[in-house]
Amino acid sequence: MRVLGIDPGSAAMGFGVVDSEGGKLIHVAHGTLRPPRNSPLAARLNYLHDGVAKIMGDYAPDAAAVEQVFVSVSPRSALVLGQARGVALAAVNAGGAPVVEYAPSRIKQAVTGSGRAGKRQVQNMVRRLLDLDRPPPSDAADALAAAICHAHAGRLGALALEASSRSGRSRRPVLRVRRTR
Amino acid sequence: MRVLGIDPGSAAMGFGVVDSEGGKLIHVAHGTLRPPRNSPLAARLNYLHDGVAKIMGDYAPDAAAVEQVFVSVSPRSALVLGQARGVALAAVNAGGAPVVEYAPSRIKQAVTGSGRAGKRQVQNMVRRLLDLDRPPPSDAADALAAAICHAHAGRLGALALEASSRSGRSRRPVLRVRRTR
Repeated sequence: MRVLGIDPGSAAMGFGVVDSEGGKLIHVAHGTLRPPRNSPLAARLNYLHDGVAKIMGDYAPDAAAVEQVFVSVSPRSALVLGQARGVALAAVNAGGAPVVEYAPSRIKQAVTGSGRAGKRQVQNMVRRLLDLDRPPPSDAADALAAAICHAHAGRLGALALEASSRSGRSRRPVLRVRRTR
Repeated sequence: MRVLGIDPGSAAMGFGVVDSEGGKLIHVAHGTLRPPRNSPLAARLNYLHDGVAKIMGDYAPDAAAVEQVFVSVSPRSALVLGQARGVALAAVNAGGAPVVEYAPSRIKQAVTGSGRAGKRQVQNMVRRLLDLDRPPPSDAADALAAAICHAHAGRLGALALEASSRSGRSRRPVLRVRRTR
């Protein structure tokens, strides 16, 4: 399973791509999209849309993970963030992958073991989990953390599914037949 | 000059296209984009992005006009509106037109003469100004009003430019030469 993590922002949009193979995490790519500062708002949003579309084309992820937004921010910040987030989500959908949202605390928990970890802790744990030479920049680290969170959740989800289908099988007629032997 | 007006919204995005020829307004088209209610957020945003992209392709406007957002709304509403607004602005930019923002009061002023006009008043005045059989639905009427506002401003802007270039010419060397005759 290949997961794209996105940390949406209007001035800097972090992204990270992670492969998950049998519980092992493999770093594929990460980076930050930075629209030209002095171009008009619509041009900057289109830059972010095209950037995410290109990432979708280049890496063809099976799913994309983003942070849920808890609107503790001001309405003005929420509007600005929303505009950037909107183009990212639209571009992921255009690229054919589902978007999964995770609470920020759950993402931090998934990579550091603590839902209240700081930025530096997330960067360091992402570096360790993906065996990178150095901690990625904060935006990209947050994006990689979202991807790792989904890779874990996906794996746990798959294990849970496997487990429930096993226990399901134990209630099937074939076992009752065995018991009657 | 052809102007596209957009009234961004996540559940309903109004649009309207108006031609302005020598001060005369000509209605070209209007409508409302409504993403399927039960599809995921990213799919709804991509629907809106594609819808605006199609409008840009179909009508090739010279400019797009949208309301400035005054964030008297809640952060949650600002986020939701921002997401829809972001994809609309990105799609306009991708279609090659500049986006111009106007204060809601200025748009109302442009079509009704009052910056505090109600929705119904805007609908009725848009109908009269564009010689329509009936008032357009509210979202589309707001979009047409934004387009009309820009058509007026554009015309006034053009007149102002003409005026200033005339007065500018009067300060050019060629006139000083005349004066020395």
